[in-house]
Amino acid sequence: MEKVRTIKLERSVLADNDADADALRRELKQKRVFLVNVMSSPGSGKTTLLISLVNRLAKRFRVGVMEADIDSDVDAVKVAEKADCKAVQLHTGGMCHLDAAMTRQGLKELGTDGLDVVFLENVGNLVCPAEFDTGACLDMTILSVSEGDDKPLKYPLIYQKCALVLISKLDALPYFPFDIEKCKQNIRRRNPHSTILPVSAKTGDGMDDAAEWFAKAINNFRESK
Amino acid sequence: MEKVRTIKLERSVLADNDADADALRRELKQKRVFLVNVMSSPGSGKTTLLISLVNRLAKRFRVGVMEADIDSDVDAVKVAEKADCKAVQLHTGGMCHLDAAMTRQGLKELGTDGLDVVFLENVGNLVCPAEFDTGACLDMTILSVSEGDDKPLKYPLIYQKCALVLISKLDALPYFPFDIEKCKQNIRRRNPHSTILPVSAKTGDGMDDAAEWFAKAINNFRESK
Repeated sequence: MEKVRTIKLERSVLADNDADADALRRELKQKRVFLVNVMSSPGSGKTTLLISLVNRLAKRFRVGVMEADIDSDVDAVKVAEKADCKAVQLHTGGMCHLDAAMTRQGLKELGTDGLDVVFLENVGNLVCPAEFDTGACLDMTILSVSEGDDKPLKYPLIYQKCALVLISKLDALPYFPFDIEKCKQNIRRRNPHSTILPVSAKTGDGMDDAAEWFAKAINNFRESK
Repeated sequence: MEKVRTIKLERSVLADNDADADALRRELKQKRVFLVNVMSSPGSGKTTLLISLVNRLAKRFRVGVMEADIDSDVDAVKVAEKADCKAVQLHTGGMCHLDAAMTRQGLKELGTDGLDVVFLENVGNLVCPAEFDTGACLDMTILSVSEGDDKPLKYPLIYQKCALVLISKLDALPYFPFDIEKCKQNIRRRNPHSTILPVSAKTGDGMDDAAEWFAKAINNFRESK
């Protein structure tokens, strides 16, 4: 028996992705499902961080995870084994990003009935995913300490778009020339209003605060009209 | 006075990028300029590694570097300050990759007269750059230890395409769950013939061997008809 289901996404033929994304956001609002679009570089530790976060949130919320990749199911298998949630693997057919129609397909396969929050792990890429609205209620990005504090200077759009930035692999800080204050300044140059939370999924440092931030965001979303 | 020149690239209007890339490769062969297309994730340490490599090669060859980014000139400034070579910054106008026409524009601005080898640091992205032939004589990718040994499973095309993979940030091996042998197996699943060289630009580990590999490749290219 396969450990997780893998869904091959159809490429979108819709001309107006923005309108489709808005429609999906309205549907999610009606169903009270909070969809989080998680973007980052390959290897920033998205999956490990999600597992740590989901296991904290699962005490209070019913959680779903969609792992999008070009190939392989290593991430979804890891999530299914280690996190207390529903998980599916989405294959993008070589595509470098997800759009709203692909996200909708994924949600249909995952099944959102009874779920409070769904995390979509987008393709590891700082450029293209930022250009396509997935219909998510929250766009976030993860920047790992090992990548360097200058990434917001080089990939402006993703930092402009994201309301939340998690600085991950905080435990690796002694081994890399990464200045957290400089990084925060670089992020704020792109978006003065973004929330920035430094975390380590390995040591658990900052993870309770991050989970609390998400719990508030989910509750606010579910209570607002 | 600006430290480095920044060139805004025009988006390509050519229908047949593959034919244009082949034409550029023939021109480079005639001029005996060995063009290397360096691809990787954001934050894999491309620039630091290039500086370390260029300073080793500069004793024997005349080297040029083109730094491609969506925004900022941090990489070209770093190269100009620390490496013994000609350097320019290319801005892609938001584009997630370079094609042959954009590469040709960059080479024209850099000026290739008298150069033996040019390194093109492509946009940090494992997906789109692999889909577009730049006209380079060698495609290579860098995988840093902090990204994880599973990247070749998730980003198949770039590993299929690259004849050389440098495993970088080898000094960080004690701090990350990265298995070099497993990584080599994962790379070889995508391309059984690729050369794999583990290096650390920080400690210099493996860098002389890598420089030697490049010196041979450059000489072979310049001597062959």
